[in-house]
Amino acid sequence: MEWIKDGNLDFLKKRKVEAREDAQKSVAEIMNRVKSGGDEALKAFTKQFDGIALEAIQVTEDQMTAAAARVPKPVLQAIKQAARNIRAFHEKQIPQSWTETVDQGVVLGQKVTPLDSVGVYVPGGTACYPSSVLMGAIPALVAGVKRVVLVSPPQKNGLIADGVLAAAHEIGIHEIYQVGGAQAIAALAYGTESIRSVNKIVGPGNLYVMLAKKYVFGDVAIDSLAGPSEIAVVADDSANPSWVAADLLSQAEHDRLSMPVLVTDSEPFGRQVEQEVEKQLKELPREAIASESANKQGKIILTANLQQAADVINQIAPEHLELATREPKEVLKFVRNAGAIFLGKYSSEPVGDYFAGPNHIIPTNGSARYASPLGVESFIKRSSIIEYSDEALQANGQAIAAFARFEGLEGHARAVEKRMKGAVIHE
Amino acid sequence: MEWIKDGNLDFLKKRKVEAREDAQKSVAEIMNRVKSGGDEALKAFTKQFDGIALEAIQVTEDQMTAAAARVPKPVLQAIKQAARNIRAFHEKQIPQSWTETVDQGVVLGQKVTPLDSVGVYVPGGTACYPSSVLMGAIPALVAGVKRVVLVSPPQKNGLIADGVLAAAHEIGIHEIYQVGGAQAIAALAYGTESIRSVNKIVGPGNLYVMLAKKYVFGDVAIDSLAGPSEIAVVADDSANPSWVAADLLSQAEHDRLSMPVLVTDSEPFGRQVEQEVEKQLKELPREAIASESANKQGKIILTANLQQAADVINQIAPEHLELATREPKEVLKFVRNAGAIFLGKYSSEPVGDYFAGPNHIIPTNGSARYASPLGVESFIKRSSIIEYSDEALQANGQAIAAFARFEGLEGHARAVEKRMKGAVIHE
Repeated sequence: MEWIKDGNLDFLKKRKVEAREDAQKSVAEIMNRVKSGGDEALKAFTKQFDGIALEAIQVTEDQMTAAAARVPKPVLQAIKQAARNIRAFHEKQIPQSWTETVDQGVVLGQKVTPLDSVGVYVPGGTACYPSSVLMGAIPALVAGVKRVVLVSPPQKNGLIADGVLAAAHEIGIHEIYQVGGAQAIAALAYGTESIRSVNKIVGPGNLYVMLAKKYVFGDVAIDSLAGPSEIAVVADDSANPSWVAADLLSQAEHDRLSMPVLVTDSEPFGRQVEQEVEKQLKELPREAIASESANKQGKIILTANLQQAADVINQIAPEHLELATREPKEVLKFVRNAGAIFLGKYSSEPVGDYFAGPNHIIPTNGSARYASPLGVESFIKRSSIIEYSDEALQANGQAIAAFARFEGLEGHARAVEKRMKGAVIHE
Repeated sequence: MEWIKDGNLDFLKKRKVEAREDAQKSVAEIMNRVKSGGDEALKAFTKQFDGIALEAIQVTEDQMTAAAARVPKPVLQAIKQAARNIRAFHEKQIPQSWTETVDQGVVLGQKVTPLDSVGVYVPGGTACYPSSVLMGAIPALVAGVKRVVLVSPPQKNGLIADGVLAAAHEIGIHEIYQVGGAQAIAALAYGTESIRSVNKIVGPGNLYVMLAKKYVFGDVAIDSLAGPSEIAVVADDSANPSWVAADLLSQAEHDRLSMPVLVTDSEPFGRQVEQEVEKQLKELPREAIASESANKQGKIILTANLQQAADVINQIAPEHLELATREPKEVLKFVRNAGAIFLGKYSSEPVGDYFAGPNHIIPTNGSARYASPLGVESFIKRSSIIEYSDEALQANGQAIAAFARFEGLEGHARAVEKRMKGAVIHE
């Protein structure tokens, strides 16, 4: 891990992953071919990229039940408990419709409606992430979305991973398609013979999935463009260096581009963590990935005090933030930019990745400056309600017409004036 | 206006404006030149596109005060009252932070934080839209955004329109740059010598502005990709055909591509509105624009009843919806997709465009299926809070580790197990 002792955070400027032009071109081509070719194009791309000759695109109920039966009991139990926790947390996020009489004859309000349909992308290939199913789909279900669709690429055996199907089965998702990559995003956005299009697509994926989501953005909604993820730990010398090192590595094992960052006011503590990282790395199954992440992206940032540490955090805007200090809430006060915040030394990041309830689909790559974790808000929309009585229109019509006319929009002024008594000017 | 009596809504499929490839290329070039050339590039593009040789990029306080003094008193009064109404409505939207003990030793919550900085794009050129200033900036100010920046292209006289500066002055915006087009979006996203970059860019603009917003999406946040706008009026024969026609035209006068739609269960009423539209059109200053919109985009859709009318509305997902029926709230029950909903015959659309309080920056082009009007939500973000005590970690650690291990993420499992008593496995 690289030490930074002079407050120079220039490394943040290099965080952005520039999409290569050739990747953008291939994605545009995939999108167009799925638009015109439908299911046939989906199957051709699945053969080409996943090496699988799909017979059916949709997963059957029998396949789901069989998959669930193959998942070990304790894991199924953990999935069930996690699903309960995630549902309970997201139920606290449901916004309410309201209307209010704000003035004589003036009623204003907001009507909250769930989206009609949503597609959840679950990464696949070599990995199996039932947690992504829970985190992507449960907030949509809690929001009241009627049609929640799952897509995930088939594994080498030609099926979506058991754990993914088991998690979907557990929470009552029945519409699942075994396609992945940019072609799955195209199908969700534009529809094919088998897959009806949806209003919004969420969930993380690889570079091609990300570029495909940017491509369809504006035709449908998307959650965000996921990039390399971060964990930042703010720790003082009261923290346990072995625990902190393990948490840094839990992020590092995700991806070579993941960035594990320790921000501390204690240089000796930083050195202990550094040694622990090196020690624990050697015993990790995913050592190759984790060590590249730790060595190339990892940072230990030394600050004069913990308030300065919070300033550093606000510039990093990390996806995950652990506050492993004596008084974590004192540091929390100064934190503005972070996706998920873990308070105190027992709140290890994986607690949130799987289990606690808050979402693990969190803004990455510094976008916690302006974005929120996935949640019920991601799956509802608000309509404004405006109701003026005759009386209210008479009282305010002149001001409205004057404003409209000043903007050169005579038609707007007249629409109001037509309703005004004794002032029917333009008929 | 075109009559549709058979329920065929295929015209909706043609709504999408395909971005021409040459426009995308010019935008990419503009973005790159501003990234590398900074202020000089901004000035060169302003000369090229707006015909103005800028001396200074930033507007001075003196220029703002002078502009405000040139705006007629009744208009200033209307701006002030509108600003008060808009502020009052958006103050009802402020979400609150919360934490809650959900279980023994488990505290979860959400911390709400305003964005640090926001740029509001205000269209200019031949138009002057102080209302866009109010609607774009007030929700950001209410959210608590510290730095709210305005950009708008200079008019032919080399200055931003008086009304725009007056509205900004009224609500306390002091950082204003006289640049527009894609180059202004580039400056806001990537920064120049004069303009520091912002976290989010909002506000409508022309095709180039829209393409530029799509380009920067992912580097910064944007509100939405604005396209041609719609008004849909659901009316029965209790409505006033002259008023309904005037409201349809108030949308039509915006843009040749605007779509005014009447949905009614009464053919005679539809014919009356049609005649009124033709009559009123002839007397409109913006007749050329409004008649192209009404003739080429306008529709009168006849339905068997008002519930069917609501189904049609849900497919259109209009930006603006007026319910001018005997029982508007009965129709409202069935409406799922609409940006702003105006109830009853006195609630003319311009009431909301300028004055009532809800935002007039509303999802266009059918995106009300999945998006909301601009609001305080657009300018805040949520951070999840997770706090597990020692006790909570001990109680749940095993399940979390089992889940992580099942996903093949051993490092995640170990981070949790290191904290478990009597189960320190991997040290």
